[in-house]
Amino acid sequence: MSEQIGIGIIGAGRIGQLHADNLVCRIPQANVTAIADVYIDAAHKCAKQCHIPNVFDEPRRLIEDPQVDAVLICSSTNTHAELIIEAAQAGKHIFCEKPIDFQIKTIDRALEAVKKAGVKLQIGFNRRFDPGFKHARDTVAAGKIGVPHMVRITSRDPEPPPIEYVKVSGGLFLDMTIHDFDMCRYLLGEEISRIYAQGSSLVNPEIGRAGDIDTAIVTLTYESGAFCTIDNSRQAVYGYDQRVEVFGSEGCIIIGNPTPYNGTLCTQSRVEQPLPLYFFIERYNVSFLEEMRHFVKCVQEDTVPAVSGRDGKIPVMMGMAARESLETGLPVSIAIAG
Amino acid sequence: MSEQIGIGIIGAGRIGQLHADNLVCRIPQANVTAIADVYIDAAHKCAKQCHIPNVFDEPRRLIEDPQVDAVLICSSTNTHAELIIEAAQAGKHIFCEKPIDFQIKTIDRALEAVKKAGVKLQIGFNRRFDPGFKHARDTVAAGKIGVPHMVRITSRDPEPPPIEYVKVSGGLFLDMTIHDFDMCRYLLGEEISRIYAQGSSLVNPEIGRAGDIDTAIVTLTYESGAFCTIDNSRQAVYGYDQRVEVFGSEGCIIIGNPTPYNGTLCTQSRVEQPLPLYFFIERYNVSFLEEMRHFVKCVQEDTVPAVSGRDGKIPVMMGMAARESLETGLPVSIAIAG
Amino acid sequence: MSEQIGIGIIGAGRIGQLHADNLVCRIPQANVTAIADVYIDAAHKCAKQCHIPNVFDEPRRLIEDPQVDAVLICSSTNTHAELIIEAAQAGKHIFCEKPIDFQIKTIDRALEAVKKAGVKLQIGFNRRFDPGFKHARDTVAAGKIGVPHMVRITSRDPEPPPIEYVKVSGGLFLDMTIHDFDMCRYLLGEEISRIYAQGSSLVNPEIGRAGDIDTAIVTLTYESGAFCTIDNSRQAVYGYDQRVEVFGSEGCIIIGNPTPYNGTLCTQSRVEQPLPLYFFIERYNVSFLEEMRHFVKCVQEDTVPAVSGRDGKIPVMMGMAARESLETGLPVSIAIAG
Amino acid sequence: MSEQIGIGIIGAGRIGQLHADNLVCRIPQANVTAIADVYIDAAHKCAKQCHIPNVFDEPRRLIEDPQVDAVLICSSTNTHAELIIEAAQAGKHIFCEKPIDFQIKTIDRALEAVKKAGVKLQIGFNRRFDPGFKHARDTVAAGKIGVPHMVRITSRDPEPPPIEYVKVSGGLFLDMTIHDFDMCRYLLGEEISRIYAQGSSLVNPEIGRAGDIDTAIVTLTYESGAFCTIDNSRQAVYGYDQRVEVFGSEGCIIIGNPTPYNGTLCTQSRVEQPLPLYFFIERYNVSFLEEMRHFVKCVQEDTVPAVSGRDGKIPVMMGMAARESLETGLPVSIAIAG
Repeated sequence: MSEQIGIGIIGAGRIGQLHADNLVCRIPQANVTAIADVYIDAAHKCAKQCHIPNVFDEPRRLIEDPQVDAVLICSSTNTHAELIIEAAQAGKHIFCEKPIDFQIKTIDRALEAVKKAGVKLQIGFNRRFDPGFKHARDTVAAGKIGVPHMVRITSRDPEPPPIEYVKVSGGLFLDMTIHDFDMCRYLLGEEISRIYAQGSSLVNPEIGRAGDIDTAIVTLTYESGAFCTIDNSRQAVYGYDQRVEVFGSEGCIIIGNPTPYNGTLCTQSRVEQPLPLYFFIERYNVSFLEEMRHFVKCVQEDTVPAVSGRDGKIPVMMGMAARESLETGLPVSIAIAG
Repeated sequence: MSEQIGIGIIGAGRIGQLHADNLVCRIPQANVTAIADVYIDAAHKCAKQCHIPNVFDEPRRLIEDPQVDAVLICSSTNTHAELIIEAAQAGKHIFCEKPIDFQIKTIDRALEAVKKAGVKLQIGFNRRFDPGFKHARDTVAAGKIGVPHMVRITSRDPEPPPIEYVKVSGGLFLDMTIHDFDMCRYLLGEEISRIYAQGSSLVNPEIGRAGDIDTAIVTLTYESGAFCTIDNSRQAVYGYDQRVEVFGSEGCIIIGNPTPYNGTLCTQSRVEQPLPLYFFIERYNVSFLEEMRHFVKCVQEDTVPAVSGRDGKIPVMMGMAARESLETGLPVSIAIAG
Repeated sequence: MSEQIGIGIIGAGRIGQLHADNLVCRIPQANVTAIADVYIDAAHKCAKQCHIPNVFDEPRRLIEDPQVDAVLICSSTNTHAELIIEAAQAGKHIFCEKPIDFQIKTIDRALEAVKKAGVKLQIGFNRRFDPGFKHARDTVAAGKIGVPHMVRITSRDPEPPPIEYVKVSGGLFLDMTIHDFDMCRYLLGEEISRIYAQGSSLVNPEIGRAGDIDTAIVTLTYESGAFCTIDNSRQAVYGYDQRVEVFGSEGCIIIGNPTPYNGTLCTQSRVEQPLPLYFFIERYNVSFLEEMRHFVKCVQEDTVPAVSGRDGKIPVMMGMAARESLETGLPVSIAIAG
Repeated sequence: MSEQIGIGIIGAGRIGQLHADNLVCRIPQANVTAIADVYIDAAHKCAKQCHIPNVFDEPRRLIEDPQVDAVLICSSTNTHAELIIEAAQAGKHIFCEKPIDFQIKTIDRALEAVKKAGVKLQIGFNRRFDPGFKHARDTVAAGKIGVPHMVRITSRDPEPPPIEYVKVSGGLFLDMTIHDFDMCRYLLGEEISRIYAQGSSLVNPEIGRAGDIDTAIVTLTYESGAFCTIDNSRQAVYGYDQRVEVFGSEGCIIIGNPTPYNGTLCTQSRVEQPLPLYFFIERYNVSFLEEMRHFVKCVQEDTVPAVSGRDGKIPVMMGMAARESLETGLPVSIAIAG
């Protein structure tokens, strides 16, 4: 290893820009040579800010660019699978934002192309790279809490997305809970056998009218007899609330929310502390950087990315089972091949 | 009424002694005149320690004692309903440990007797008097977190009871979760419409062989669309873990575990803090005293106890529904008359 | 050991009543047979509340009472030394509230009498029995923080005492800081060699006009090169603020304020936690009980009380040195015989 | 003014590189055009890493470079004053690391040159830009804790510097405490009138043999009657310990140490939390960036930097007074002209 990796970014929206900034400024092993967006102005703006030499309005041309060793797919979900296939066929390594797709068949087709081409694929479940959650996983993996019995995941956004976004989001389970499905897999390294999901529209009735929910409790059962509960809300007024807890035969590891500083104000009426970091840009600041470092390192050192295509597929399966459970009011069994 | 209340205690076990000690030493409005236990030595021992003048081996005689205005029923569960009926018929006010009984029919018979006699009945759901949980309830009731959307209850014992106890306990849901069923009712003041319970035997296989579980996740659904999850374990190796969280449209109130002191040790390898108070005697020390103060006050001032006979019955209904859900693997609907 | 200890209490004020209550209700090894107060009504009131059979208006008669094995001296400071001498001469064991006296000569006379009579003497530095501070001392003594380098004591009252009390209090250093002087001795088990005290009247100018201060910083130097700082205020509006920190070559132990419960309220504008326990009755609730248990145990088992007469004298010497430093504006050397 | 600011960095050591990285990657308003270091290899290395076009071995040539609008002085302390003078005479704005110099006369000469040239000068007291400490200052300035009575600053390094560094450091008070002297000025916005300093060599006897101390307690007195205590250690084995507390008539604001994540591990033997961030690079990560943003903004918008030349001088005066106090064993009065 010694050469820089040539990287092309597809999609110049918020997340594309964030990755561009991290790659350009903080990952010297990467050389971002191109950015593509159908909104060419957005691509140009990002290119200027991050000193990216080549700009395309057509992802295909970026993929074909011989300077590009690896592509980041940060465009809208409905384009993910097709772009994975094109990139794989062009022999380019791939980082793709979650979810791969809303259809298992389409996902399978994309993963097949990746396999055939022998390129690397990493899915953007960035929370695995959060220092707190990584510490929880390492603690569990090191056996410090013994055999895991229960996982509790709290995952609440500070405010609901626009109703237009809700309508194309795939629903709460595939848009928001999908991260938590990945988290419980990451924490325990074991697959579930049953899922029971409940949901309602308590935050904003418009969300309900759009056929979605904004509040949910999902319980997962493992073959081993362990359990996981996930609670979601589209609106925690005090900010982004992202906590996990794993309880086992020898102890319990609890990860709470980080705050902008560690401060306590005591007055006659109360003791006051800072609110959590407001939203994912602040909270997952480090994890976005670390996932990109991991991807570049995997490409450069020819190792296997920690978040595989299969890791991208299974949470979608779980999300679909959750949706079925919500609709039928019954637990749903789910078999995940080894 | 300003005179002291004459109190007789039935049952000189651990909980009977605890109430005796609180009444004698810390509640001057109470005058404990008698204690009864079929194990007469236990009764004598407690009487001596707490300066209680009269000792009976026969609860009936204590109930009939004209010095006794109110009885505390601290004997084994299978005697509760019968003693309630006898005490009610004798016109005595009643404090009864939970659960009233494992049969709804029997409970109804006891409550009917109480109603007919017009005496007071308070059930020993002492956790309502815990300063932290009371603060949570008051915060919710004052509207400080807006409309409640989700409740999370963690309730884990430091060690499982002896297997002999497990066999007669009525099962985890009626022995342990029953407190949590009461807690969610206390926190929200609203009844549930559906229950889904999962359980397994992960702590001690003997518990499984005895037909019970030692680890459980229960989710409750409210008509309003709100949810509650309860997680139970018979063994948290770090001590008694009793936390609640209520999340609503305007905020979240979280109650954690108290510790014996507020201390932090920083060394080269770690930052260390004290374990939670070990078990219920330490953790609910204040709440046991406060529930007794409340009972004595209600008798003395002729007001209605905060934990009614109905409050004793509904958690048993919930426990039975949880058992049914566990057995069928399906959610169970439950209708609780207003 | 098997007999109960007969105890007589001199002084039926707040602290006398507190000890009476603890002894009567919670220490079965003690038998409080008498209480004395020159305000005979106060004595009668306390006697009634705590079922104390004998009441005296004259301490001397209580001391002479053959039922009394040990006396608690809870009267005003100016009577302490004389009562110690009388009790010692009568062969009674002695628990005396702090300070013994404001004059070293008088203290020496009292300690001489105790020594001559061979009775036990324990001084009421109750904070040594606080679970948090005891944990700090045990941590230091066990070598867990290595060689101590620095001690920091924060000691702030929630509100100043009445100005009449201030005038007869002996001044902040002998009334309030004296506890902290004892605390640093307790934590390190080592004597100081130099003291530098600064003070001002920032809380209430009336206190300044009465010749006292209400805010102070005291720094202590040890022969070993270690240091201690104490900060005092007569008014922390958020409640009783009593913290200690010992920093050493291998780590740091920090004791914070206990709270009535462990709770966190998160709203759009802030994260809020409970205030500390309001004042010494609440905060040192356990330590008052434990110091009394210790005294009764020492008498019963014929062992040496942990807080000796010398422990009562040295903080007074330190308080006087602090006063001298405040007046001269210079550090004061102090030699404490081994 | 809307153009980018041309910046030249003098000194390619750790701190120079850190500023270069922040300016190049995260402050688009800055254009780092040159770097100079007498160790030309270090300059070249940094230039390559940060894409800085011009490299000089001679600071003077960098100062004269017409592309350079502002210089960062990150070289060794003994060169600061001379470089300030040269840069000022060349009409360049100046950011200078602390301390300006160890001689007041020399500092005055440098500040005179700055004044005469009418250029901007900002001193590198980066801790003023720490989110926690800034929050403390804002809280005090907003009157939320009322009139300040006491400040407590804890400032402890995780490990002592090499003994060679200690020998040329100017001593603990001018090397380490100088930051804390600035902090108390920042927090209260008021000058002190008296200083009393104690110190010893407890961490490493070599430091003592080199004529310096490694452990210190400094107390500061304000005209208003308020106090400040600073405690320093060259070695806190658990990591960088940087806390402040301001106590006032209406409350108290306490800033603690940030940690890499918010996590709690509970096991049978203990509750464990993460250590603080290890040292200043991690802890003051944000504040180094923010101070640079502030400097660039001041130059660009022609406003006055928040940390002035006078702010660079007064902590040196305080450090010298502390040294005098340590040597004489007496408090030292200090008059700071308004």
